Amino acid sequence: MYTLKEIDWIIEKSILNMDIGGDPQSLYNPIEYMISIGGKRVRPRLCIITFSLFSDNINKSIVYPALALEIFHGFTLIHDDIMDKAETRRNQPTVHKKWGENCAILSGDVMSIMAYRYLAAYTGDKLSQVLELFSTTAAQVCEGQQYDMDYEKMPFITNADYLNMIGLKTGALLACSAKMGAIIGGASNEISDALYKYGFLLGIAFQITDDYLDTFGNAQIFGKKIGGDILNNKKSWLLVESLRLATEENKNRLSHIMEMGEDSAAEKIEQMKNLYIDLGIKDNALNVILEYQRKAMEAVSNVGLKENQLEKLKEFSEQIIYREK
Amino acid sequence: MYTLKEIDWIIEKSILNMDIGGDPQSLYNPIEYMISIGGKRVRPRLCIITFSLFSDNINKSIVYPALALEIFHGFTLIHDDIMDKAETRRNQPTVHKKWGENCAILSGDVMSIMAYRYLAAYTGDKLSQVLELFSTTAAQVCEGQQYDMDYEKMPFITNADYLNMIGLKTGALLACSAKMGAIIGGASNEISDALYKYGFLLGIAFQITDDYLDTFGNAQIFGKKIGGDILNNKKSWLLVESLRLATEENKNRLSHIMEMGEDSAAEKIEQMKNLYIDLGIKDNALNVILEYQRKAMEAVSNVGLKENQLEKLKEFSEQIIYREK
Repeated sequence: MYTLKEIDWIIEKSILNMDIGGDPQSLYNPIEYMISIGGKRVRPRLCIITFSLFSDNINKSIVYPALALEIFHGFTLIHDDIMDKAETRRNQPTVHKKWGENCAILSGDVMSIMAYRYLAAYTGDKLSQVLELFSTTAAQVCEGQQYDMDYEKMPFITNADYLNMIGLKTGALLACSAKMGAIIGGASNEISDALYKYGFLLGIAFQITDDYLDTFGNAQIFGKKIGGDILNNKKSWLLVESLRLATEENKNRLSHIMEMGEDSAAEKIEQMKNLYIDLGIKDNALNVILEYQRKAMEAVSNVGLKENQLEKLKEFSEQIIYREK
Repeated sequence: MYTLKEIDWIIEKSILNMDIGGDPQSLYNPIEYMISIGGKRVRPRLCIITFSLFSDNINKSIVYPALALEIFHGFTLIHDDIMDKAETRRNQPTVHKKWGENCAILSGDVMSIMAYRYLAAYTGDKLSQVLELFSTTAAQVCEGQQYDMDYEKMPFITNADYLNMIGLKTGALLACSAKMGAIIGGASNEISDALYKYGFLLGIAFQITDDYLDTFGNAQIFGKKIGGDILNNKKSWLLVESLRLATEENKNRLSHIMEMGEDSAAEKIEQMKNLYIDLGIKDNALNVILEYQRKAMEAVSNVGLKENQLEKLKEFSEQIIYREK
C-alpha cells in the first residue's frame, strides 16, 4: 500500500506534467495560473488514497479522475471569486482581477469541461457510475454556492442551514472524491458508500476547521489575512453558533459588532474574537471538529476494512483537522 | 425511418417533459426559463435525425443525449449574454438581466453540468467515445467564444479568422450532434466521421445564414431587431467580406459607417446595407451558403449511405438554409 507521502508526490508530479496549453492562450493561461497557484490538493489526495486501499496499480485511470476533482474545484473557485468580488486567492490576484470578468467566466467554463475530460481517462466498466456520481456532486457544489449567496442577504441562519450549505459546497465533493477512488479501485458498493460518508463528514470537519483558522489562525502560516470572514459578516460556523447561543445581552453586542464598518476593521475583528471566546465558541469549534472526525471514522468502522486500511484513513483525517493552513 | 416532423414532435414533447426543478429555486428557475423560451432546437434535431438513419428505436438513450446538446447550447447562451451585455434573447430579457449576473453565472454552470447528466443517460458501450466527443466539442465552443471576444477588439480580421471562429463556435457543435447520433445509432466509424463533416459544414452555412438574416431578414419573422450586428460592428460574415473586398474608396466609406454611433442607428444600418449590396456581398452570401450546403452533402455522398438516408440529410440541410428565422 502506498504511503500518504508517496501519494502526495504522485499528485504533485502529475500536476506539474499536466498539459494545459491550448489556443487561444487568453482562454488557457488563466487555467494554468489557477492550477499552479496551488492549494492543499485535498480532493485528489483523498481519491487516490481510497483507491490505494484496494489497488496498488496507480496509473492514468485513477490519477486523471483524481485530477478532475482538483480541476473542478479550481473552476468553482474562479467563478466563486467573481461572484464574491474577491481580489486575492492564496495571496495572488484572482483570475477576474488579473484577466477581467469575461475571461474568468469563460476560462472557468472550459475548466469545468476539462474536468470531465480528465474524468473520462477512466474507461473501465464503472464509467457510467463514476460519471453520474461526479455530475450529481458537481451540481450539489453549485447548489451550495447559491445557498451561500442567498444566506449572505439573510440576517439569521440556523446551524442546520449552515450544515446543509457546507454539506453541498464542501462535503459533497470530498465525499465524491473518497467514493470515486473506491469505485475505480474495485471496492464493494457497501464500502464505497461508507467511504462516501467518511468523505462527507470529513468535509464538514474540513470546512469548520477553515472557518476556525480564518478567525483564530496565524496569518503567516494560514497564508491569508486573519479575520476576513468577520469583516464580511460571513455566515461562518463561528458566527452561526454565536447567533444561536447569544443571550439577549450578547445579541446586542453581536449586532453592534456586525454593524461596524471597514474603518474600524481591527477593532471589529478583536471584538468578535472576544465574543466567540466569551461564548465558548472557540473551544467548542475544536470539539465539534473532533466529533466530525470521529463520526467519519465510525462510518468506515464496520464494513470489513482491515486494520491497515483504517489506519490510512485515520492518518488522512488527522491531516485534515490538525493543521494550521 | 421517422420523418423530420415526427422527430420534431419527439423533441418538443421531451423538452416539455423535462424535470428541471430543484433546490434552491433561485438556481433552477433560470434554467427552466432558458429552456422554455425556445429556439430552433437544431442540435437535438440533427442528433436524432442521424440516429434515425440507423435505428428506429428512439428512446431515452438517444433522446437524452440529444437534449444534452440543447442544454449545453442554452448554457453557452446564458454566459455569452453576460459577456456581450445582451439585454434580450429571443425577444425576452436575458437571464442576467432578469436574475442578476451572479445568478446567471451559477445557473449557467449548473446547466453545463446538467448537459453531462443528460448525456450519461446513454450507458451503452460507446459511452467513453461519446463523452470524449462531447467534451472536446464543448471546449471548442468556448474557444470560439473567446476568439469572438478577442476579435471584437481588433479592427480587421480575415475570412480565415472568421471561419475558424464560427467553426469552433457553431460548426463544432452541429458536427458533434450529427456524429453523436450516428455513434449511438450504431453507424460505422467511416459514416460517423462523414456525418461529422456534414454537420460541421452545415454549421458554417447555418451561421452565415444567421449573419445574413441579422442584416437582411424580416424583423417580424426573424424575431429580433434587424441590424444588431451592424450597430455593434460585429465581425459577421458580411462585415468580414466587406473588409476583404472594399477598394480604397469603399474602405473610407466603411470606416465612416463603422464609426457612426448610437444616435444615428437607423442611418448606420441603412448605409451599411447599401454598402453590402454595392459590393455584391448580399448576393454572394446566398451563394456561399448554398456552396456550404453542397459541400455538406458531398461529405456524405460516398460512404455507402442509401438513397432514402441521403434524402433525409438533404431535407434537413434545406431547412437549415432556406429559412427566414
